[in-house]
Amino acid sequence: MPDVMIKPDERVDDLQYKGLKLIQNKKGFCFGLDAVLLADFADVKNGDRVLDIGTGTGIIPVLLAGKTKAQSIVGLEIQEELADLASRNVALNCLDSRVTMVCGDIKTAERYFKAGQFDVITSNPPYMKQNGGLINPSDTKALSRHEITCTIEDITEKTAWLLAPGGQLALVHRPQRLVDIVWCMRKHGIEPKYLRFVHPSRDKKPNLILIKGMKGGKAELKMMEPLYVYDDKGKYSKEIDEIYERGRCYDG
Amino acid sequence: MPDVMIKPDERVDDLQYKGLKLIQNKKGFCFGLDAVLLADFADVKNGDRVLDIGTGTGIIPVLLAGKTKAQSIVGLEIQEELADLASRNVALNCLDSRVTMVCGDIKTAERYFKAGQFDVITSNPPYMKQNGGLINPSDTKALSRHEITCTIEDITEKTAWLLAPGGQLALVHRPQRLVDIVWCMRKHGIEPKYLRFVHPSRDKKPNLILIKGMKGGKAELKMMEPLYVYDDKGKYSKEIDEIYERGRCYDG
Repeated sequence: MPDVMIKPDERVDDLQYKGLKLIQNKKGFCFGLDAVLLADFADVKNGDRVLDIGTGTGIIPVLLAGKTKAQSIVGLEIQEELADLASRNVALNCLDSRVTMVCGDIKTAERYFKAGQFDVITSNPPYMKQNGGLINPSDTKALSRHEITCTIEDITEKTAWLLAPGGQLALVHRPQRLVDIVWCMRKHGIEPKYLRFVHPSRDKKPNLILIKGMKGGKAELKMMEPLYVYDDKGKYSKEIDEIYERGRCYDG
Repeated sequence: MPDVMIKPDERVDDLQYKGLKLIQNKKGFCFGLDAVLLADFADVKNGDRVLDIGTGTGIIPVLLAGKTKAQSIVGLEIQEELADLASRNVALNCLDSRVTMVCGDIKTAERYFKAGQFDVITSNPPYMKQNGGLINPSDTKALSRHEITCTIEDITEKTAWLLAPGGQLALVHRPQRLVDIVWCMRKHGIEPKYLRFVHPSRDKKPNLILIKGMKGGKAELKMMEPLYVYDDKGKYSKEIDEIYERGRCYDG
C-alpha cells in the first residue's frame, strides 16, 4: 500500500474491485449507492477526458479509473478538506497518472479549465434546495447535501462551456428536481437524452433519477427500464448485483 | 335513447358507467386507455369550469361529466367531422346542459374563450412530432396522431392564457416527449407538479406519462407511484380495475 496519511477520524474501505480502496471520514458524507449507479450509468469511452463536479471523497473518479479506459479524470471539489481526502484517495490507489483532484469552485471553472476540454462530465450534486434555513458553512456534510456552493443552474451552465460538442453530462439526483434539471439542461444546450428512474422496490415511487444529456443533441428523450434496488424478498435485485459486479464497491 | 343520428360507418359503445354511451367511427381513432387514465388523473372539483383540448369523440368531457360535479365542460376540436361526432355524443348522453363542443383551433383560442376562463384544462394531444413526412390532411386518424394542427407549445401557451390563477393543466403523453412538455409548461408559467409513469407491466419501461401542472405554481415536482397496466398474469392490474370502476369504460 502506498504511503498515504490516514487521519484519526478516517477509515479505509476496500471497494472489492480491482484492489481499489477509499478513505472516508467516519463522520462525513460517505458515498452510497447513488455514486455507484452514476459511475455505471455514465458512458465513458476509451480515451475520454472526464470531469466529476463536486467529487467529495473522489469515489466517482476512482471507480471510473478502475472501470474505464478514460485518458484522464479530473475531480473538482470546493471543500478543501474533502479535496485533500480525494487527493489521498488518488495516491492510495496509485492513480496519479490518470486522475487529478482540483480544489475549486465550479462557478469559476474558467480559472482551472478550458472551453470544450471534456468529453464526459459527471456529478452527484447536493440534492436539496437552499430554502433559507441557516446552515453552518463549516458543516461539510451539510455542504454536500444542500445547494449552498453550487446549484443545478451552475452545473449545467458551466458544463455547457466545458463539454466538447456531442459531449455528455451524466447526473444522479432526486426525482423532485427533475423539472429543474431538464429545464436547466435544455436552457444551456445540453439536451436530455436518457432518463432512468431508480425505485427502492417494485411498488415504491422512484427516489433517484439518472439522467444523461448531450451537448447540442437533438430533442428526443429515451426512457430506460426502471431500476429496482431491492427485490420482493428485500435483497439487492439481480441488476444491482450486476452493477456491483461491474464495479464492485463497498457501500458502507 | 335520445334521437341522435348514427352514421353508417359509426358504432355506439356502452361505457358501462352511469349509462353513458359513445359514438365512434369504426375506421377513425377510437379512444383508449390513455383517455380513461387522463379523466381519472385530472383534479376536477365541484363547480369547476373545464376545457378539453383536441377532444376528438368527446370521450374526456363525457367521462368527466359522469364522474365529476364540474359546472361546465367544453370540448375543443379542430376537425369538423369529429366536432360533429362529439356534439352528437353530448346529445346522446343528454349532457347538453353542462357539456358544449366547439369546433375550432386552439391557436386562435381568443376567438372562442376569455382569458382565465377555465379552472382545469385537459388534453390527450397528438403524440407524434411532425417530422416532415407527408401526411394527407384529410386523414382524420393521422391528424389525431401527429402534431399537424397543434403542438405542445401551442397547448401550453394557450393554456397559460386560458387558465385562472392556480388552475390545472392535465396531460397524457408519451415519455419521449417529457422534456418538451416540462420545458413548454415552465416556459409558459405552468409549473409541473405531479408526474406519473404508466408501464405496460412491472419490468417494462413506461409508455405513457400523466402530468399535472399548476398555473403560477411553486417549483416542486411530486413523483407518483408507477402505474402498471397489466399484472404478472397478463390481466389488468388491480389499480386499472379500480380506475375503470370509478369511470367504467369500454376500451374497444
